[in-house]
Order: sequence, then structure tokens, then C-alpha cells
Amino acid sequence: MTDVVDLLRAALGDAVSTEADALEAARADKSGQRSAGAPLAVITARTVEHVQAVLRSAHEHGIAVVPRGAGTGLTGAAMAGPGELVLSTAAMTRILEIDEADQVAVVEPGIRNADLNRALEPHGLRWAPDPASREISSVGGNIATNAGGLLCAKYGVTREAVLGLDVVLADGTLMRLGHRTVKGVTGLDLTALLIGSEGTLGIIVGATLKLTPIPTGAVATIGATFPTIEDAAAASAAITAARIRPAAMELIDPVALAAILRHLGLPDRAPGTAHLLVQTDGEAAESEARAALAIITALGGTARMTTDQEEGERMLAVRRAMHPAMESLGQVLIEDVAVPRSQLPAMFAAIRTIAERHGILIPTVAHAGDGNLHPNLVYEGDEVPDVIWRAAGELFEAALALGGTLTGEHGIGTLKRRWLVDELGDEQLALQRRIKQAFDPRGILNPEKVF
Amino acid sequence: MTDVVDLLRAALGDAVSTEADALEAARADKSGQRSAGAPLAVITARTVEHVQAVLRSAHEHGIAVVPRGAGTGLTGAAMAGPGELVLSTAAMTRILEIDEADQVAVVEPGIRNADLNRALEPHGLRWAPDPASREISSVGGNIATNAGGLLCAKYGVTREAVLGLDVVLADGTLMRLGHRTVKGVTGLDLTALLIGSEGTLGIIVGATLKLTPIPTGAVATIGATFPTIEDAAAASAAITAARIRPAAMELIDPVALAAILRHLGLPDRAPGTAHLLVQTDGEAAESEARAALAIITALGGTARMTTDQEEGERMLAVRRAMHPAMESLGQVLIEDVAVPRSQLPAMFAAIRTIAERHGILIPTVAHAGDGNLHPNLVYEGDEVPDVIWRAAGELFEAALALGGTLTGEHGIGTLKRRWLVDELGDEQLALQRRIKQAFDPRGILNPEKVF
Ligand SMILES: Cc1cc2nc3c(=O)[nH]c(=O)nc-3n(C[C@H](O)[C@H](O)[C@H](O)COP(=O)(O)OP(=O)(O)OC[C@H]3O[C@@H](n4cnc5c(N)ncnc54)[C@H](O)[C@@H]3O)c2cc1C
Ligand SMILES: Cc1cc2nc3c(=O)[nH]c(=O)nc-3n(C[C@H](O)[C@H](O)[C@H](O)COP(=O)(O)OP(=O)(O)OC[C@H]3O[C@@H](n4cnc5c(N)ncnc54)[C@H](O)[C@@H]3O)c2cc1C
Repeated sequence: MTDVVDLLRAALGDAVSTEADALEAARADKSGQRSAGAPLAVITARTVEHVQAVLRSAHEHGIAVVPRGAGTGLTGAAMAGPGELVLSTAAMTRILEIDEADQVAVVEPGIRNADLNRALEPHGLRWAPDPASREISSVGGNIATNAGGLLCAKYGVTREAVLGLDVVLADGTLMRLGHRTVKGVTGLDLTALLIGSEGTLGIIVGATLKLTPIPTGAVATIGATFPTIEDAAAASAAITAARIRPAAMELIDPVALAAILRHLGLPDRAPGTAHLLVQTDGEAAESEARAALAIITALGGTARMTTDQEEGERMLAVRRAMHPAMESLGQVLIEDVAVPRSQLPAMFAAIRTIAERHGILIPTVAHAGDGNLHPNLVYEGDEVPDVIWRAAGELFEAALALGGTLTGEHGIGTLKRRWLVDELGDEQLALQRRIKQAFDPRGILNPEKVF
Repeated sequence: MTDVVDLLRAALGDAVSTEADALEAARADKSGQRSAGAPLAVITARTVEHVQAVLRSAHEHGIAVVPRGAGTGLTGAAMAGPGELVLSTAAMTRILEIDEADQVAVVEPGIRNADLNRALEPHGLRWAPDPASREISSVGGNIATNAGGLLCAKYGVTREAVLGLDVVLADGTLMRLGHRTVKGVTGLDLTALLIGSEGTLGIIVGATLKLTPIPTGAVATIGATFPTIEDAAAASAAITAARIRPAAMELIDPVALAAILRHLGLPDRAPGTAHLLVQTDGEAAESEARAALAIITALGGTARMTTDQEEGERMLAVRRAMHPAMESLGQVLIEDVAVPRSQLPAMFAAIRTIAERHGILIPTVAHAGDGNLHPNLVYEGDEVPDVIWRAAGELFEAALALGGTLTGEHGIGTLKRRWLVDELGDEQLALQRRIKQAFDPRGILNPEKVF
């Protein structure tokens, strides 16, 4: 196997690294997990040909390849271990084209989401997916995980924003999937299949992205507190039911709120207080916000509304402080279940019961507009303790029982592999494996992940 | 094989028909093609178990099964011939659930698109896909073809409006794909893969649909004429480039316009005159329409704008008269290429050149908001003449050369099978066939279609 590394080094030069630091970094992502040991090498591809060369060799010699973007994933999907090659697309960061008329961009996979959006801004355009990690995650990683974000209830997840993909298959074949047109139904939709496939079907080396105009007009923001999280969740459900479509609608449960306020040096609220943030945009921003405000007040919330953009940003800063606030509590396992929107109150209740049963903290935020919750399971130490895994398992079962799904936007990776069959069933899992085989008959692409 | 029909009749009773009329009807769809001869039988399933029973038998005996909805397809994908069984889901028309809070409907596949939308209307909700065939086509057929319509540039095609599918595989296995939540990334996205698969991967027996609120507020409609179709297309491209998002934007070329005016008994226009229809909706309807009007006038169009809903409908009636107007010209082969929006003028020019070269009429309309053109190739007689096939082939090549795709919304079926490889290439076609095999190892589902 070292032979293969030597061969690759001969062919690709300093794109191939076996430095201890590089190998060590590739053992982990942001899931809090770490692989059993160092991988063989990290190849930082600079061209499509690099990617093809690595896969041709790996395929020939039956060596596993772990695709890697920026390594910000929360499920272990980019973790690499002994005997594996890491193929990073993080250095392929070029924007090949921005077409204003067709509202299309063609990019390499390594560009950071926020860098791309900064380049698009002067054109009045954006790429809609806005994960909280947009400053640090890559477009290729966003596509491979079908990333979502605060704005996706109104503006769609990654799947709605990709027209075509250039993909290198396990044997090194380069394939162009999809099209540049906004519509097209030629053959099976392999672009859609690749999105969210977590590096198991092919390496994304190029993407044709569907852009959208940056919304103009007013922005209105509401910050509201409620005596309980169930009340706040009921208000968010009522806003959806009233056909209001906020750009962002975020719930913060009492445990999370207390930690965030402490982190920001803001005064405490009464115990149990929950927070609801609503932001509307576009021509109807203000009238929609007024309608939401009426619902919030009627359902027992105390709210403030602003059409001042800066004040609105300050109100959202509470939600954006979630990740840093968690760091002050200890280690966290960040979860990602989704339930039908009407089941948000029930899911919050289930989370509280599970936290109490195990005597742990589970501060939770939710993208209320699409029923996607992020329970943060807090623990001490370097390894995720068993009690946290047990609680996580109960969370997943509760979500499935409410008609929900294991993961709204982060993916399966290694973290949720053991629960996958509970959601899909044996027969669908077997079918998914057969499809994997159609792409990667030798099973070298990101093995031991997802399936 | 007749044994199998006898066995099915014993099991399913009068769901199985071998009446000459039924067999004859199943030989065709609306593509103007007809299979070589009558199929073995038409089974009109009334339950999921019926579908499973048919596939179990067919699988065991290696008999081909052609799924069929309402038979309105334009590519021959639902045509059945000698030795094949037809499995119709047209009689499975129940709405199992409408959930207002979660904005979800669960339906059987046979319900007509317009019937579903009439049932949703009292709830203030709709299922967005709006093919021109919505009164006569089934939801299952819409899903199997990923149907689009007038409104899809703004409101999305079928793919954006389906959360989950119940599917019976070739061997009779019932599988539930997707989820009821608006977001979810558990495993490979087989729901997306099934959408647009034209009956080649499985039979859709149930669908969980994502609904959207019926837009409220004003509707503004503009009807404009231009001296040439290139001018009209340039205006539509400029409207898109100005970040205006019409609910519908339709181009009608001079040949189509003349036929429609004649059909409606309206006065002729100057030769070469083209028509552009723009409809905006939502809170910003009027301001968006005024901006579009300014562009139209600046680019040489003569336009009328109204915010009166009925007058707007009358203006759209011109576009809706396209299909009936074509019938007065003769037989038509309805084509469906899509190009990047900026290439619309070039594609119209290519169509005119092809029509002149072959001395045929190709009246053309286009969904300008998403670059999707429907050239109607006019011919006489029962069989599509060779010259029409040659012209169609040149159309496809022109669309591909402009960065476009063979089919924006109708699919491949049998009609475009011979051009599929030109767009996908040999390697992708082989991959698509391997995926087909992962679903249907014996190749009994809609064989000779698409691939
Ligand atoms: C603070 C923080 C906030 C976050 N917020 C969000 C959020 O709001 N929404 C959300 O969805 N996620 C969020 N995430 C998770 C993570 O950022 C996303 O999953 C992101 O899309 C991963 O991108 P990446 O470039 O870091 O990919 P990586 O972590 O490197 O890889 C993720 C997966 O994609 C595959 N992959 C990467 N590049 C390629 C490629 N070129 N070809 C094929 N496969 C590839 C990998 O094999 C792996 O399976 C957050 C993470 C953090 C740390
Ligand atoms: C006048 C007219 C206007 C049209 N306008 C449009 C338009 O604007 N936009 C558009 O996209 N199309 C349009 N079409 C084409 C056609 O109506 C659509 O393709 C429609 O979605 C087909 O639905 P159907 O129920 O008639 O399906 P069918 O024609 O019966 O079948 C179409 C395909 O779907 C498969 N299928 C059907 N039901 C199932 C099932 N339950 N499970 C698995 N596979 C199944 C069949 O095998 C076949 O491959 C138009 C057609 C006509 C005649």
C-alpha cells in the first residue's frame, strides 16, 4: 500500500502528504469522533486530473478513498483511518464562471460557501444554501451533505440550488451529470442522487449552481419570549399554518437560551423562558411580520419587532451565538432530527423527558420553518460517553415515532449508521447498497460510511 | 403467458381486462405513436395489493409490465405492445389525507392533478405542478415524468413538490421512500431518483406531497406583441436578468400566433409578429409588472397590462389555445427542448432555419422563465414522416449545441431514446442502466423505454 503512496507521489508531487499533522487532522471532522488511527496519506488535489489519477490507482489496488472538503461535517463522514487515502478537494477553489443573464455559476468544489457568496454579491446574486458553517465549509461538502441553513424553509436546501455536477467515479471516469438549463428530465436524475450522498458514490470536482437574486426590499425581525418552549413552538406552528413564509424562523429552548445569555453577558430570564426569532423579507416583509406578531402576542409571547436591519442582525446574533455558547458548557454531540412541523412541541417535550431521565443537559435549537431540531447533548471528556449515545438513540426513536427522520441536514456518516435501518428498513437498505455498487463495484469510496 | 393472464384474472377478477378496446387504447399515448400490436391484458389496479400481485407474477414469469396513468404522455413512455402487461393506476384515486398544519397531502397515484387541486382549494392550499394537461393527467404520471407547467419557473417542478413515495418494485416488494418532513437526508435520495423515472424503476402507489399556500394578493398580466420572435425572446431574457420573477412568462412565435388567432377567430397580425405573456403575483405583483412593462416597451414591444383577474385569464387564453389550434393544422409531433434562458433567441432562430430547410411548419411556444421550448412539428397522415424525424433530430442537436437538453419536462420515452446517448454519453448511459438493474434485475418494468 505504501507502494501506491510512492507511485502517487511520483505522479502528483507535493499534492501528496504523509506529514503527521496532515494525517492526524484527517482522522477527525467536527463530530467529536476520531478514527482508529492515521490514514496512509492526504492528497490535496489541485486539478480534476489529480482526482482521476488517485482514483485510478486506488481502484486498481483496491484501496479505500475518503473524500474530504473542509472537514466541518458533524457525522464523521469525512473521517479517515488506517489503510485509507484521503482525497481533499479543499484546494480546488476557482470560480470558473458567473453568468448573470442565466443566473448560473460554475465552480470548483473547494470554494468556501461564504467566499462564493461574497463573489456573487456585486452581481446581485447569491447561492441560497446558508449553513451556519458557511464561512468554513466548502460548496462540495455542502452538496455532498445536501446542507441546509436558516433560510432554507423559504429559499430551499442545496438540492434546489444545483443544476449539474462533474463527478469522478470510483474507477477514475469523469462524468458530467445534469445540465445548465433550469429544467431537464433527460434520463434518471443522477445529480439529485449525488446530492447528499456523503462521498459514497463519486467525487464532486465541479458544480453548475443555480443562483437566485438577493432579495431586495425591507427586512423585518421579531424577537419573542414565551413562558415555555411548547408555547413558543405552538406559535411557530401557528405562523406556518397562517401561510406566513418567514425567511428564517428559529426556536431556542430554555436550556440553550440560558447558556447563550450567559455567554453573551446578558441578563437571565425567568426559568423556562424560551425564545422565538422570526425574520421576513421581500416586498411583503412588514405586513407578514405584523401578522406574525399578532399571532405571537395572542399566544402569550412578549415580542419586539424591528425593520431596522442592524437591530435585526443583533436579534439574530442570539441564535448565531449558539455554537460558541455550547463550547462553554463542555463537549457537545450535535444532533439533527426533523419532524413534521406540527410535531415540534411534542419533540421538544420528548427531548426534555430524555434529558431528565439521563440527568444530562440537551440545549436545543430548531429551524422551526422546516421542523428541523438540533439537540446538543452535553458531556465531559474526550470520548462520547455511553449515556450520551443512549440518549441520542432515544431521541432518534422519538423523532421516528413522530413521523420524523434521523437527520434533517447533517447526514448519516458514521454517527447514525446504526440507526439507519430503523428508518429505511432492511429492503430499502439493501436497494441502496445495490445502487452504491452500481457506482462503485469495488466499494472503495468512503467505505464504512452511511450504509 | 396467457396462463399468467388467467392466473391474474383468477386472483384479481374484473381488474383484469382483455377487451379489444382496452388493449387497443393501451397501445398509444398522446405522442402520436402506436405500439406494434395489442398487449396481453390491461390490469386496472384498485389497491396496492393488486399492484404487488401483478408484479410478483410478472417477475416470476419474466413478463414485461408497462405502468400507465392517464395516458396523456407525449413520448410513448406508456405505450404497450405484444407480450406486455399494462398496469394502470388510474383507478387508485383516493386522497388519504390533507394536513393543513403541515401542508402535506397523502394521495393515491391515479387522482387527476386538477381534481386534487380542487380538493385542496378550500384549504387555501395547492400542489404546485400545473402541466397544461392538469385536467386529464394523473399525479402518479406527473411524478413519473417530473412534469412542469406554466408556473414552474417561480413555483418549481414536480420534484420540488414531493416528499415521499410508496413504490412497488419489480419483484412486488412495497417500499416507502422519503419522509413526511420537509427536510431530510437519511441515506440516498431515492425519492428524487424515482421522480422522472418514467415507470422504469418501480410503480408509484402512493405519494406524500408538499403543498403550498395559494398565493394571495393581486395578479397582474401583460400581453405584448413584438415585430419578431427574437425581439420578444430578448425582452423575456431582459425581464429575467432584471431579477423579476413572473409566475408565468410565455413566448408564442409568429407561426403559432397566427394559428391561434385563426382558431380563436381573432384578427390577423402583421406577418412575423410574436407574442409575450407575463403574469406576476403576490404582494409585489403590480410593481413587478410595471417594471416588466417598462422593459417590454423599451425593447420595442406594444403591450397591454391589467390587474383585473378575468381580463388576465382572457389574455392567458391565447396561450392555452395552443393545443386546440394545432389540431386545426394537422398532426403534430410536440417537442420539448430546453436551453439556458439567454439562448432562447438563438434557439428560435435555429427552429426557423430548420423549418425553412425542410419546408415544414414548426409553430413554437416557450416557457420563457425557464428556457423550455415546445416546437410543434406539423405533418399529415397517421405516421410521423421521416422528414419530421430528421427535423426533430436537428432540433435536438441545436439545443444540445446551445448548452441545452433534449427534454425539459416531457421525458424520453420511446420518442427520444435514439438521442439519449448524444446527451449522456456512453459511460453515463451504462451507469444509468446499472442503476436500473439494481431496481429491476430481470428488466421487466417498462423495457425498451428511455434506456
Ligand atoms: C459550527 C458548525 C455549524 C454547522 N451548521 C450547519 C448548518 O447550519 N447546516 C448544515 O447542513 N450543516 C451544518 N454544519 C455541518 C457541516 O458544516 C456541513 O455538513 C457542510 O456541508 C460540510 O462541508 P465540508 O466542506 O466541511 O465537508 P466535509 O466535512 O469535509 O465532508 C462532509 C461529507 O462530504 C463529503 N465530501 C466533501 N467534499 C466532497 C467532494 N468534493 N466530493 C464528494 N464528497 C465530498 C465527505 O466525504 C463527507 O462525507 C455545521 C458544522 C459546524 C462545525
Ligand atoms: C394537451 C397536453 C398538454 C400537456 N402539457 C404538459 C405540460 O405542460 N407539462 C408537462 O410536463 N407535460 C405535459 N403534457 C404531457 C403529460 O400530460 C405529462 O407527461 C403527464 O405527467 C403524464 O401523466 P399521465 O398520468 O397521463 O401519465 P402516462 O402518460 O400514463 O404515463 C407517463 C409515464 O409515467 C409512467 N407512469 C404513469 N403512472 C405511473 C405510476 N403510478 N407509477 C410509475 N410510473 C407511472 C408511465 O409508465 C409513463 O412512463 C401534456 C400532454 C397533453 C396531451
